[in-house]
Amino acid sequence: MDREKLDIMRHSVSHLMAAAVKELYGDVKFAIGPTIEDGFYYDFDLGKKTLSEQDLPKIEEKMKEIAKQNLKFEREELKIADALKKVNDQPYKQELIKDLEKEGEKKVSFYKLGNIFEDLCKGPHIKSTKEIGVFKLLRVSGAYWRGDERNKMLQRIYGTAFEKQKDLDNYLKMLEEAEKRDHRKIGKEQELFLIDKTVGLGLPMWFPKGALIWRVMEEFWYQEHLKNGYELVRSPHIGSRNLWETSGHWGFFSQNMYPSLEVGQTLEDAKAAKKAEVKEEYLLKPMNCPFHVILYKARPRSYRELPLRWAECGTVYRYEKAGELSGLTRVRGFTQDDAHIICSKKQVKTELLRVADFITHMLSTFGFKDYNVYLSLRDPRNKEKYAGNDEGWEFTEKIMEEVADEKKLNYKKELGEAAFYGPKLDYKIKDCLGREWQCSTLQFDFNLPERFDMKFVNDQGKEERPYMLHRALFGSFERFIGVLIEHYAGALPLWLSPIQARIINVGSAHEKYCQEVHERLLKDGIRSELDILNETVGNKIRKAEKEKIPFILVVGDKEIAAKAVAVRKRGEGDKGPQDLEKFVDMIKKEIAEKK
Amino acid sequence: MDREKLDIMRHSVSHLMAAAVKELYGDVKFAIGPTIEDGFYYDFDLGKKTLSEQDLPKIEEKMKEIAKQNLKFEREELKIADALKKVNDQPYKQELIKDLEKEGEKKVSFYKLGNIFEDLCKGPHIKSTKEIGVFKLLRVSGAYWRGDERNKMLQRIYGTAFEKQKDLDNYLKMLEEAEKRDHRKIGKEQELFLIDKTVGLGLPMWFPKGALIWRVMEEFWYQEHLKNGYELVRSPHIGSRNLWETSGHWGFFSQNMYPSLEVGQTLEDAKAAKKAEVKEEYLLKPMNCPFHVILYKARPRSYRELPLRWAECGTVYRYEKAGELSGLTRVRGFTQDDAHIICSKKQVKTELLRVADFITHMLSTFGFKDYNVYLSLRDPRNKEKYAGNDEGWEFTEKIMEEVADEKKLNYKKELGEAAFYGPKLDYKIKDCLGREWQCSTLQFDFNLPERFDMKFVNDQGKEERPYMLHRALFGSFERFIGVLIEHYAGALPLWLSPIQARIINVGSAHEKYCQEVHERLLKDGIRSELDILNETVGNKIRKAEKEKIPFILVVGDKEIAAKAVAVRKRGEGDKGPQDLEKFVDMIKKEIAEKK
Repeated sequence: MDREKLDIMRHSVSHLMAAAVKELYGDVKFAIGPTIEDGFYYDFDLGKKTLSEQDLPKIEEKMKEIAKQNLKFEREELKIADALKKVNDQPYKQELIKDLEKEGEKKVSFYKLGNIFEDLCKGPHIKSTKEIGVFKLLRVSGAYWRGDERNKMLQRIYGTAFEKQKDLDNYLKMLEEAEKRDHRKIGKEQELFLIDKTVGLGLPMWFPKGALIWRVMEEFWYQEHLKNGYELVRSPHIGSRNLWETSGHWGFFSQNMYPSLEVGQTLEDAKAAKKAEVKEEYLLKPMNCPFHVILYKARPRSYRELPLRWAECGTVYRYEKAGELSGLTRVRGFTQDDAHIICSKKQVKTELLRVADFITHMLSTFGFKDYNVYLSLRDPRNKEKYAGNDEGWEFTEKIMEEVADEKKLNYKKELGEAAFYGPKLDYKIKDCLGREWQCSTLQFDFNLPERFDMKFVNDQGKEERPYMLHRALFGSFERFIGVLIEHYAGALPLWLSPIQARIINVGSAHEKYCQEVHERLLKDGIRSELDILNETVGNKIRKAEKEKIPFILVVGDKEIAAKAVAVRKRGEGDKGPQDLEKFVDMIKKEIAEKK
Repeated sequence: MDREKLDIMRHSVSHLMAAAVKELYGDVKFAIGPTIEDGFYYDFDLGKKTLSEQDLPKIEEKMKEIAKQNLKFEREELKIADALKKVNDQPYKQELIKDLEKEGEKKVSFYKLGNIFEDLCKGPHIKSTKEIGVFKLLRVSGAYWRGDERNKMLQRIYGTAFEKQKDLDNYLKMLEEAEKRDHRKIGKEQELFLIDKTVGLGLPMWFPKGALIWRVMEEFWYQEHLKNGYELVRSPHIGSRNLWETSGHWGFFSQNMYPSLEVGQTLEDAKAAKKAEVKEEYLLKPMNCPFHVILYKARPRSYRELPLRWAECGTVYRYEKAGELSGLTRVRGFTQDDAHIICSKKQVKTELLRVADFITHMLSTFGFKDYNVYLSLRDPRNKEKYAGNDEGWEFTEKIMEEVADEKKLNYKKELGEAAFYGPKLDYKIKDCLGREWQCSTLQFDFNLPERFDMKFVNDQGKEERPYMLHRALFGSFERFIGVLIEHYAGALPLWLSPIQARIINVGSAHEKYCQEVHERLLKDGIRSELDILNETVGNKIRKAEKEKIPFILVVGDKEIAAKAVAVRKRGEGDKGPQDLEKFVDMIKKEIAEKK
């Protein structure tokens, strides 16, 4: 069954559900019942009744009962006035019809399900309930009429439907697995991060364990950048409005920017106070680029200095609608592992090849082998909507493709998907629900070099415009950690785990030796933790396993006698006793190998 | 001569200078001529004439000539109307008199210098020019009338005066030395940081070398914090207005905060669009504390978890008037090396002792042995203006003093200088002009635990309010780097130097070996740089010396033959040839010892 047919069937199941609710609860006011990505929902006004998950089996039963009758879906068209009469006891439907009238409609359509239910609906629908495959009601929730919190709270039931039982089973299994891997859930269980309404929407804060993961990633990132010939720069989180006007962001990106911060006095205030303090305007940065450009322009640059590779883990702020935020993967404040490469034309290809290798190296070190690469090119029929000239575009698009071919990136070419400022290569990683998130990216920029009139003096002593590349390897720390958590279902690799080993005593006689083992591990920089609480060993092991700690070291009489630890390795279970020094060597080796 | 007398004499020298300018340039309009911290200035309107440094000797000569005449300073009082008549050709003086009239003055005073100059002036003055010691005109600059850029640009001459030649000589020497050490000048010469009007006022950006110093400091800071039992946390740069209202900052600190960022739609817009997107308000953070409190409150806390030591290098934004900004030492955006210690009452003293030791360790590692410590206590006569209760204040003030005594901090007690939220211990370091800058700080906070109702469950199973300490060791990275640069006059210790060794070839035959030496150093993480440009060795050495690079390694035939490098050590000069491997061992040892 293709997607379109599936959606039609699901929409019909939504009507079926409404019919069942009507049969069961009598006086129901119906709102809307659309299909969504993975199924459908319907919003009901049940007066004082609040639905719970316990009500779902009963509704499902009733739906099956109705479906068995092979009722037909039949369309009927009515003039607005007649339609309003038909729904005179349905206030939400009346409101919808009036809106359609305002939009210029003369007639509206209804769909009848046998004789038991009739609904204002554009359709289309299946012919009869015979065509319904298998369905399942998933959950209930409250939902404001029209999504507006000042309106009445309605009861929403979510469900899904598939052609075959096997597909439904797979879907339910996927949901279950996804729920286990959900980085929001794991982040809470493992105390990694916190997104809290008191602080704001889309603004993650990091508990010690999460901040530790971040630091380990950042230090690795930094060392790899040093090896790859990058230098760090730093820039502030606000910049003058002028800067963002010059860069063009205030023009083309302002819907994603926070409003202007006005400080100092207005000219009028200043005049009154006879002081020179005048108004200044600042904007929270949505990108780091203009600052790097200003650093570049601080003095004349020579070809001898190129390529410059300037990196910064810069936290940027972009306004996203509240409803579009999602855990760590779509936030309002995020730290890009940004870098700008400024080079001459003849350095472009080498730099691209280096970045492509760097991305592959980075992703594979973190365990990602499976991702989709997109090469976004400009729309050749709409050349005028892009910054830069033809020569630059043709040259860079060609080279990007060459590089993608040479590096055997299994990429998809997308015409017209380039940014207005340049072509780009995006690497997208999937989360637990199969949604793709852009992480690594490599983009040319023809806009900023022009707007800021960037130059260097070439080996002929003449001024030349440099090429500028933006690139990020993680994309952002927040999103990358989010997909990492889902990728590993919370069991992060040893080198990234905030706690690498937990030491557990069998009884109080073993506490002292536990402490010694702990200090031995800390001495070599292994992130060790003691659990010498007065609980059973079994409980303490289960707790550590639930926290996905890579190594659990149990210590009793035998281990003390042998200067050993009893090792339990995550995913491999009991490995028996090991000499402490040998264990230290082994775990250090695994950490160094980024296991 | 005491300070008051010195100021009076300097003010009289300012009149003397005005008299000389009048003698020399004829038609002068006089503005104002006050004393300042280290001398005086006078602002003149000279029509189209612009003064330059070359004019100063001539003016000084004329001043000396007049001073020799032993002219008297004589006071005269006039009614407003008469005063206005007297200055009918002096528009600035007229404006000043009119202002005095508006303020309710009936009479104003003038001071006559012999018969050659008379000036509207409150006085007092010395009796005659006989009492003038030695003076020196320092520089000229433009200055807007009343500091307002929409007013006319006047000519300002700065000068100073002392009782004795020796004092003037010392002062001029200090100025010269200070100019050499000025972190703004060195920051520019060494390309460490950039403060650029295009980006905004008081918002430093960091070039690669500066960002490298920062990273070295930060990594050291982090490792020391791990050793000292701290954990990292992270927080965003904006937080909801509600958060800052709860914390009280929006109430008592808003004059230093940037205005509110309103996003989303207003209620009216939302209603019109029939969507739930409603207005949210955010504020740029001036402090990190409230975020740490929210992390603390994310779940119930037990006495077993305390003390919590949560650190964050968090960049905060505080509005300061443009005129109060100063290089890196007073900025609008700065990164505090912040930490909050949350502990029980009986842990307070141990924690304080630990922080005091930590501060001393940190400051001495960076070479600061000489700083002033201030213990700020509350004003016992105004107890009601402080947050918290008597018991808390008495307990913490007593313990802070005990700790300061035990640690033999040579501190000054300041009654009434505590923050309203708690007593504090501040460590201030001097810059090249002798100005004190607060760096390390240790502060109790009775405000946030109350406002956020922070609790933990004690060993009796009862809820208890924890004690909360703020502390910073650097204070901020920006300011600390500023005072570091001045302390070392730009010659940062080896371990902090962005370039630790520069390798110079004698001729082109030595380039390859230079490259080998360079790679050998890089292999061990030594920050090495090559200078194989086609210039004389002498020039290249001078250039490296000017950049204050700790080690200059010169390579010619002899060095290649001996697998050696000819070493020049900063401050010690030519150390002769050294075996390369021995040099590597030595420099690594010095770096490890934080030399």
